[in-house]
Amino acid sequence: MSIAYPQPIDAAEVPRFAGIPSFMRLPICSDPAQLDVALVGVPWDGGTTHRAGARHGPREVRNQSSLMRRVHPVSRLAPYELARVGDLGDAPVNPIDLMDSLQRIEVFFRQIRQAGALPLAVGGDHLITLPIFRALAQDRPLGMVHFDAHSDTNDSYFGQQRYTHGTPFRRAVEEGLLDPRRTVQIGIRGSIYSAEDEDFAKACGIRVIHMETFAELGIQATLAEARRIVGDGPTYISFDVDALDPAFAPGTGTPEIGGLSSQQSLQLLRGLRGLNLVGADVVEVSPPFDVGGVTALVGATLMFELLCLLAESSRTTGLLAGAEGAS
Amino acid sequence: MSIAYPQPIDAAEVPRFAGIPSFMRLPICSDPAQLDVALVGVPWDGGTTHRAGARHGPREVRNQSSLMRRVHPVSRLAPYELARVGDLGDAPVNPIDLMDSLQRIEVFFRQIRQAGALPLAVGGDHLITLPIFRALAQDRPLGMVHFDAHSDTNDSYFGQQRYTHGTPFRRAVEEGLLDPRRTVQIGIRGSIYSAEDEDFAKACGIRVIHMETFAELGIQATLAEARRIVGDGPTYISFDVDALDPAFAPGTGTPEIGGLSSQQSLQLLRGLRGLNLVGADVVEVSPPFDVGGVTALVGATLMFELLCLLAESSRTTGLLAGAEGAS
Amino acid sequence: MSIAYPQPIDAAEVPRFAGIPSFMRLPICSDPAQLDVALVGVPWDGGTTHRAGARHGPREVRNQSSLMRRVHPVSRLAPYELARVGDLGDAPVNPIDLMDSLQRIEVFFRQIRQAGALPLAVGGDHLITLPIFRALAQDRPLGMVHFDAHSDTNDSYFGQQRYTHGTPFRRAVEEGLLDPRRTVQIGIRGSIYSAEDEDFAKACGIRVIHMETFAELGIQATLAEARRIVGDGPTYISFDVDALDPAFAPGTGTPEIGGLSSQQSLQLLRGLRGLNLVGADVVEVSPPFDVGGVTALVGATLMFELLCLLAESSRTTGLLAGAEGAS
Amino acid sequence: MSIAYPQPIDAAEVPRFAGIPSFMRLPICSDPAQLDVALVGVPWDGGTTHRAGARHGPREVRNQSSLMRRVHPVSRLAPYELARVGDLGDAPVNPIDLMDSLQRIEVFFRQIRQAGALPLAVGGDHLITLPIFRALAQDRPLGMVHFDAHSDTNDSYFGQQRYTHGTPFRRAVEEGLLDPRRTVQIGIRGSIYSAEDEDFAKACGIRVIHMETFAELGIQATLAEARRIVGDGPTYISFDVDALDPAFAPGTGTPEIGGLSSQQSLQLLRGLRGLNLVGADVVEVSPPFDVGGVTALVGATLMFELLCLLAESSRTTGLLAGAEGAS
Amino acid sequence: MSIAYPQPIDAAEVPRFAGIPSFMRLPICSDPAQLDVALVGVPWDGGTTHRAGARHGPREVRNQSSLMRRVHPVSRLAPYELARVGDLGDAPVNPIDLMDSLQRIEVFFRQIRQAGALPLAVGGDHLITLPIFRALAQDRPLGMVHFDAHSDTNDSYFGQQRYTHGTPFRRAVEEGLLDPRRTVQIGIRGSIYSAEDEDFAKACGIRVIHMETFAELGIQATLAEARRIVGDGPTYISFDVDALDPAFAPGTGTPEIGGLSSQQSLQLLRGLRGLNLVGADVVEVSPPFDVGGVTALVGATLMFELLCLLAESSRTTGLLAGAEGAS
Amino acid sequence: MSIAYPQPIDAAEVPRFAGIPSFMRLPICSDPAQLDVALVGVPWDGGTTHRAGARHGPREVRNQSSLMRRVHPVSRLAPYELARVGDLGDAPVNPIDLMDSLQRIEVFFRQIRQAGALPLAVGGDHLITLPIFRALAQDRPLGMVHFDAHSDTNDSYFGQQRYTHGTPFRRAVEEGLLDPRRTVQIGIRGSIYSAEDEDFAKACGIRVIHMETFAELGIQATLAEARRIVGDGPTYISFDVDALDPAFAPGTGTPEIGGLSSQQSLQLLRGLRGLNLVGADVVEVSPPFDVGGVTALVGATLMFELLCLLAESSRTTGLLAGAEGAS
Repeated sequence: MSIAYPQPIDAAEVPRFAGIPSFMRLPICSDPAQLDVALVGVPWDGGTTHRAGARHGPREVRNQSSLMRRVHPVSRLAPYELARVGDLGDAPVNPIDLMDSLQRIEVFFRQIRQAGALPLAVGGDHLITLPIFRALAQDRPLGMVHFDAHSDTNDSYFGQQRYTHGTPFRRAVEEGLLDPRRTVQIGIRGSIYSAEDEDFAKACGIRVIHMETFAELGIQATLAEARRIVGDGPTYISFDVDALDPAFAPGTGTPEIGGLSSQQSLQLLRGLRGLNLVGADVVEVSPPFDVGGVTALVGATLMFELLCLLAESSRTTGLLAGAEGAS
Repeated sequence: MSIAYPQPIDAAEVPRFAGIPSFMRLPICSDPAQLDVALVGVPWDGGTTHRAGARHGPREVRNQSSLMRRVHPVSRLAPYELARVGDLGDAPVNPIDLMDSLQRIEVFFRQIRQAGALPLAVGGDHLITLPIFRALAQDRPLGMVHFDAHSDTNDSYFGQQRYTHGTPFRRAVEEGLLDPRRTVQIGIRGSIYSAEDEDFAKACGIRVIHMETFAELGIQATLAEARRIVGDGPTYISFDVDALDPAFAPGTGTPEIGGLSSQQSLQLLRGLRGLNLVGADVVEVSPPFDVGGVTALVGATLMFELLCLLAESSRTTGLLAGAEGAS
Repeated sequence: MSIAYPQPIDAAEVPRFAGIPSFMRLPICSDPAQLDVALVGVPWDGGTTHRAGARHGPREVRNQSSLMRRVHPVSRLAPYELARVGDLGDAPVNPIDLMDSLQRIEVFFRQIRQAGALPLAVGGDHLITLPIFRALAQDRPLGMVHFDAHSDTNDSYFGQQRYTHGTPFRRAVEEGLLDPRRTVQIGIRGSIYSAEDEDFAKACGIRVIHMETFAELGIQATLAEARRIVGDGPTYISFDVDALDPAFAPGTGTPEIGGLSSQQSLQLLRGLRGLNLVGADVVEVSPPFDVGGVTALVGATLMFELLCLLAESSRTTGLLAGAEGAS
Repeated sequence: MSIAYPQPIDAAEVPRFAGIPSFMRLPICSDPAQLDVALVGVPWDGGTTHRAGARHGPREVRNQSSLMRRVHPVSRLAPYELARVGDLGDAPVNPIDLMDSLQRIEVFFRQIRQAGALPLAVGGDHLITLPIFRALAQDRPLGMVHFDAHSDTNDSYFGQQRYTHGTPFRRAVEEGLLDPRRTVQIGIRGSIYSAEDEDFAKACGIRVIHMETFAELGIQATLAEARRIVGDGPTYISFDVDALDPAFAPGTGTPEIGGLSSQQSLQLLRGLRGLNLVGADVVEVSPPFDVGGVTALVGATLMFELLCLLAESSRTTGLLAGAEGAS
Repeated sequence: MSIAYPQPIDAAEVPRFAGIPSFMRLPICSDPAQLDVALVGVPWDGGTTHRAGARHGPREVRNQSSLMRRVHPVSRLAPYELARVGDLGDAPVNPIDLMDSLQRIEVFFRQIRQAGALPLAVGGDHLITLPIFRALAQDRPLGMVHFDAHSDTNDSYFGQQRYTHGTPFRRAVEEGLLDPRRTVQIGIRGSIYSAEDEDFAKACGIRVIHMETFAELGIQATLAEARRIVGDGPTYISFDVDALDPAFAPGTGTPEIGGLSSQQSLQLLRGLRGLNLVGADVVEVSPPFDVGGVTALVGATLMFELLCLLAESSRTTGLLAGAEGAS
Repeated sequence: MSIAYPQPIDAAEVPRFAGIPSFMRLPICSDPAQLDVALVGVPWDGGTTHRAGARHGPREVRNQSSLMRRVHPVSRLAPYELARVGDLGDAPVNPIDLMDSLQRIEVFFRQIRQAGALPLAVGGDHLITLPIFRALAQDRPLGMVHFDAHSDTNDSYFGQQRYTHGTPFRRAVEEGLLDPRRTVQIGIRGSIYSAEDEDFAKACGIRVIHMETFAELGIQATLAEARRIVGDGPTYISFDVDALDPAFAPGTGTPEIGGLSSQQSLQLLRGLRGLNLVGADVVEVSPPFDVGGVTALVGATLMFELLCLLAESSRTTGLLAGAEGAS
């Protein structure tokens, strides 16, 4: 019975600005086993090479998520009827130790997976997706629909640094966590370091849909391509808010002009129903660089879109994934 | 002779940043009988359930309206040649008494109507449109073209509160002021409280054009549908700035991502020439949440667009309406 | 054993920016009977006559309170060793109904008092202090040390409005909740409506220490005077952040230049140890008008100062007050 | 009878955020002959060598002046009972022609003087004081109490530019408009171009009270010195908001840390009652560099303080000055 | 060999936030003869009639240009392999003397031309383009692709002022520097002073593509038209950031809603390869009115786009132009 | 001859907003051997446990340092006549590797010392002072005058992290770089973790002057105590801007209310002439949390004060220190 599922605080009884801001105004929960979809913050930006600040992302996304309501306006999905959803708090992090943080985050997400819940994470910078993959993909590589201005498949930084927010997906491929042939990147743009920047992605089979290609293909053809690529295998959605144009999401570390609009972002996510989802994230919301909270609001709304997808998925794939994790 | 009509201060003689900021730099006027179109502020946000601040809207829209010039760039309508236009100041309001404010606002707009002027109001939150309707629609219901992210046809709040910025149009229908079958809502979007949220609108015949429908129809088909619905009866245009995406209008109380662009908004208003207009408003500009004054600039520009429509309308419908009011 | 008392999250284990922000990072608690000092938000600004926004105060003060540590730097008071302290959440409020809100707030604080806890509230506008007094002073009037730029003893507004953030203490005196002869106001300044503005305060015996008097007296003589006035009867401390100069606390609804510095504010509160305290509040923190969160930080720090006073008081007076309330 | 004097809009009837913002909410008046004290904006910053923006000062000071009430809190002076005070609008300026602007401003203030009113101007950058002096001091030099971080007695800029906001008082001395021996400058500080920077001031007898001297002297001795210097001859007060520390007045073009506090500023102005005042100004409020409107609020409050001085002065000196001007 | 060409600092060795911010992190160079493309700031806004601030444009564009990388993402042009590019510093200006500034700027750009380098300037307000034309077009008129919300072909201001940021292109036509029949303006919109505003442009043959026309034509037809008009003669590109909608570029002096998106701007510039370019500029970035640096980022990115065009052009046209200049 | 010394760009010839912003507008220099005092940025905040952002400090302090002039207003010291001063650029740092950064910074400062220049650094977070000490104090421990809200002598963080911006001075004492008995800390305040927080400082003999003690002692007695403690041995001055109250310096990572004013800070530094200085720094300026650039202006002004001290010192101690370094 949905009656037993956790429900958000009702804005018609407690004003949206009141109360302690959990994600979506849901109950705070410390046991992932009580959840089908676990909303998690990962307040860490230790992989950031330019403007830090994404460590403050979870708190501001929680704030803005007070504006979210209960039912999806187009699909009419009602996530809190479909699944047990709660705010699992923040993953443990260490603001001054990168490797320790990667370890802590992985352990936390491993517990979520073992409990059979699907994680929906809010970063934090994009390096957090690597330990999440380590937790979720330990026994088979995942496919991914990846929204971003940047491919994040650089090899290294400062010569020897292999773990930054520009490298997670090269590492994930190398570690066998991410299946490059089931990976599609949408929104890539901006000046590049060299003409060889995308050689790795190409060589391993990642499908990169640059902004100019997206502009030509349009929403529907892009979605068809994305769905074809990830197929029905276990899939993760990773959404870097810098996929959006800075007009829509100024509060991020490495903005690139010429990006997606909010409406395009919504349309793209709404076209991903029915995938075999095992988790998702929204990353790189950086409140110190935001203006008027609009980027955190974008983050909260994208999170709600992803929640609807995951809640639906949890009824089939998700439960299987949980079973997998428990085995 | 247009020579006798009130004219804005000339920016080539007095810089735009100089002088006391009236709407459009027009003369301040205290007698609506001297005007064909009365520009009015309604600095009140007592119906706001989340983020207050629209009470400061009129002042900042006045500031930004210093940037408006005299002639419409596309239609070449010159409102100050067509009609006597002036700044009638602000409607009286009571910041701590909702019912008293509704009464004061109604009385003020009743005077405008009786004087035969068409009101163009700047809010304030969306509840101000209810007392305006009470003043303008006392003897026959009006049609409405309504731009908004939200339908504003909720029944109540906190169990018993019947008057909030989420309820004005249900009240207007119930009070016989708004003809639901001559009402069209454009831009509606965002997560909803329940799948029944729009039952009232549907049951009474309001045409709701959600954002996703608008995206499919496009500007011209949307306009054709809107014109078909309101027909040639007396009509009001109500523009809530949250119809726009927060990228274009961040300074509002209940932003929803995925909305109209500024250009779409202009195109929609430009397509509404020739309606039988009896008034219009721009509401929910909330300066404390604005960034860089851009939302107030949007408000001032939409106001200029509406002014061109009303000035043209005042030559036919408006004068008739005035006659009505005077009878 | 202090070991059993609720403790804040340790910043050396969970970074300050992480986790869901409760007051002082304390456990969230829904039963006041488990607490000696209850930290409460009152997110309501319906009594505000100029710039609203204090409704958002509790949330931002909770955010900034993540910076507070455990032990007072001067007195070495360790509040979490002295008393059971927790975040009791927000009092219920109704953003569009003033009288309903006053009722809801009073009921909530009555429960706190009956449970034997001392309330430490964060507003919200200054009208919230009236229902708190109704809850705490039902059987005998309280004394008060009141920090503010304004006396808040106006009679009415708009002719007939008796309840605004400018009137709470006249009402409290009239209702027999506040003993004017045991009341001292510190920091009063700013232009006044008329030379008669303070006639009520004078007539009933409130001691008003204007800023210019404070500047002459200095900290110690002011404190001596305040302590003399309130004596050892039950006393409340109410701190309106506009007592501070806008340089130190810009985020408030009715700023007045020429106010207290942060350091003077701290020194004044530190001089109030040993009073017979029954509760306290910090009000008028208005985040939409704040810059860089500095006013919320001031609010959180003043709250910590008051917490130390209340925790100490709860060991003697507080327990008696609790006994009173329970009888 | 004061009853006939112009009165501000009453905040207990029209909320402070409502209505078109004139200075102090006073009636707008176009004839200086109807006024004893004329409040005037001079929205011009063409003399600014670093950060422009003071052209927007009058508008924002008008906005913030809505917070001013009617009676002085310490002196109990009620300016609107003592004098006819009104908002005379803005002096005409030309944003791209320095010499033309100086001419226009002078003509405007000459009309004020000839009408027998005392001008209280809000800038604008500090160069505006030169044409004001040309209007007010045409037949005898004035004394001046000058609050500023900078002496503004430079000779030239870019080799040949003799008119900038760093040179007005050298020009005023050279033109015989300012009596240097009756001039005192308070608050001067900040690194200097060379050890000779103040040679001119010293040579002609201007008394410069640097911040470090002020810190030693204290308020009362500084005031005594200032009063001794200006004596009972006709005197002007010029207040550059950068006399205040940027913590109190960040919105200005050339901030210098280590300045006056707001309270010190108020105390200094309050100590200048009884001078033979012929006019005053507040300059260098630069809204584009302000944060949260605090500098405009400082400007509005200093303006109220100066208004009280001028209103009192207008009953004696002012009327004489008017007589002079008319002769 | 490209090895000898100046190269930007490598972000993989020196973080983007480190070091002294030159344009594109290129070496600072004082001799234009060592450059094929000279990046130049023109920090001057003395022609601005409303909101000044573009004087601060070069500094903030330099800051944000730290985010640019080396290779164009679509064309794969590598400007630093094609041409010697460097930061030539800022043109000399005089903030309080318009005519002197025009002279200084012209001389500076004349030196660049004589040295054979192509200038890429960052303003500053749009009047700076006039002295640049005087330097570059002394022996034959130039064609121009002009992106702007405003035609900037007004005749005068304040009756007699012939040089403002609203007049440069009328002056350039009159002086024989700009060939109106080889001039196209894209993005023009916003209310106008009178129906005659564009009579000059029409009479002399300038092709004005208003926003509504652009919306109908689309990118490709607009580009075809622009290329047809300028043909293969010497051409200049002038990009006023107010061509973009304020959502994308709020930090400008005269914003007009309904403008280009960032993506449209990029697409338009990318369609201009192969023109015979002699220089380009980005103007009207006004940091004091920017929010979160987004407009400066737009400016820096447009500058990179223009740099790619100029670097390519410098291999053919540019060198010829240099030869011309040297002759 | 001073004529040969590097001089800042003259603001009377090049406006302050023009040109590439080096520290104090001095020439950029890459060889410390050409300098007596080397101005250095250390753009690194990898030791920050709460709010990062100080990595952007050097760039914004450079920007604001354009406002500094040449001669000290009180001492009349003219640093550019006393010493060769230049901008040595930024120390190399690695934003994602703490230990690597400490190493790079140390090497850079070692080169400065070996070249015989006195370093004046701008952080960056406070951990940067540790590698600076390792460079400067390799052969004898230094004394220190330390301005800060926090003692920064914590032992560890997260159990095992020994290097954070809260630990530098415990490490410096342990490594024999800092002589605790010649160390004085001024401005310490704010709630503490436990009553044992200062046991280390006390045990090793560091003199901690808390804010409340400073308030009692006053400027002169504090200075006398500081001078007594450091004596005439080699001494370093470290100024954390959070020593100032957030009203004066909001842009910092760990603000504490109740701090120094700007004027007190200036007075304290001005009282430290004649010490045997070997270097100095200003740290924790965090632009993403600043408002209106005021904290960066404070940083630039404190830097100028320190520069005057170091320039004077370089004529005696500095040269000796250089000799030391060279030996």
